[in-house]
Amino acid sequence: MTATTRKTTKHKLLPNAFMARAIELSIENVRSGGGPFAAVVVRDGKIIAEGVNSVTTENDPTAHAEVMAIRAACKKLGIFELTGCEIYTSCEPCPMCLGALYWARPVCVFFANQAADAAKFGFDDAFIYSEIQLAHADRKIPMIQMMRKEALAAFRAWKQHPTKLRY
Amino acid sequence: MTATTRKTTKHKLLPNAFMARAIELSIENVRSGGGPFAAVVVRDGKIIAEGVNSVTTENDPTAHAEVMAIRAACKKLGIFELTGCEIYTSCEPCPMCLGALYWARPVCVFFANQAADAAKFGFDDAFIYSEIQLAHADRKIPMIQMMRKEALAAFRAWKQHPTKLRY
Repeated sequence: MTATTRKTTKHKLLPNAFMARAIELSIENVRSGGGPFAAVVVRDGKIIAEGVNSVTTENDPTAHAEVMAIRAACKKLGIFELTGCEIYTSCEPCPMCLGALYWARPVCVFFANQAADAAKFGFDDAFIYSEIQLAHADRKIPMIQMMRKEALAAFRAWKQHPTKLRY
Repeated sequence: MTATTRKTTKHKLLPNAFMARAIELSIENVRSGGGPFAAVVVRDGKIIAEGVNSVTTENDPTAHAEVMAIRAACKKLGIFELTGCEIYTSCEPCPMCLGALYWARPVCVFFANQAADAAKFGFDDAFIYSEIQLAHADRKIPMIQMMRKEALAAFRAWKQHPTKLRY
C-alpha cells in the first residue's frame, strides 16, 4: 500500500447520529462476545439495516460488520445493490468489506477507526492490504493459476445467455 | 495495481479434478441464472463444500462463489477458519473474495480465469483492484473518516475483554 493510498481524508464533520449508532453497536458487540466492529446502512435519512461482527459467534469468517449490514439491507430492499444508500462503519473496511461495498454500490462510506488502529489491536486488515500488493506466488497464502482455457467456457456461456441478470 | 501484482504465476499443473469440478459448477450456474463463477473447498483430498455465485439469485452482493464456499465449509466444520484446506476457484478472487480467503486462512488457493478475463465480460473485479490503490477521497465511492476518537472505545473494550475469542 502506497503512502498516498493510506493517506486519510479528514473532513471537519460534526459528530453524526448514524456513526454514533455504529460506534455504540461496536462497543455492545464486544460485550456480547463479538468483534469490536459495527456498521449501519442509511437511506433517505433513516437506518434501514445494522450489522455487527459475527465471525466467532456465527463461525463465519465473512461475517464482518459491513458484510452483515449489506446483506441485511439488501434482504430488506429485495435487491442486490444499495443504490442511494450511505454506509457508516465503525472502522475502515478491510479489503473484503471494501470489495463488498463496491459490489453493493452505495453513494458514500463513512468510517471512524482506521485499518492501522485495527492492526494495533491484533486484526489482519492492514496485513491483507499489504498482501494484495504482492505477486500471487509471493503471498502468504499462495495463489496458483491452472486450467484457464477450460474455465473460460463459463464466461462464454455467460456472454451467450439470453436472459442473464448483470450485477 | 502494479504490473508486478498483476503478473500471474503460471505453474505447469496437470488438469485437476477439483478445479474441473469448480469449472463444471461455474458453467452449470450460468444455466441456472447465476454468475459464471464457482469454488470448492478441499480437505484431506476430498471436497467438503462447494459454492456458486448467487448474487442475483439470493439478492446478496456478497454471495460470490468463494464467499459461499467458505461459509458452507465453515458451517460444516463448525469453526471460523479453514486451516488445512485448499480452495479451487474458477476465477481469480475479486478483492472481496481475496479478503475472505485471508480471513478463512486456507493453505493455498488455486484459480483458473483471471480478473482481467472477468473484466472483459463486464465484471468489476479489476476495477475494484484499481480503486484500492487510490486515496480515500479519490475513489468512485468516496470514503470519509469521522469520529475516530469516539470509535477507539470499541478497541479498548476489546483489549480489556477477559474472554474474547481472537480471529
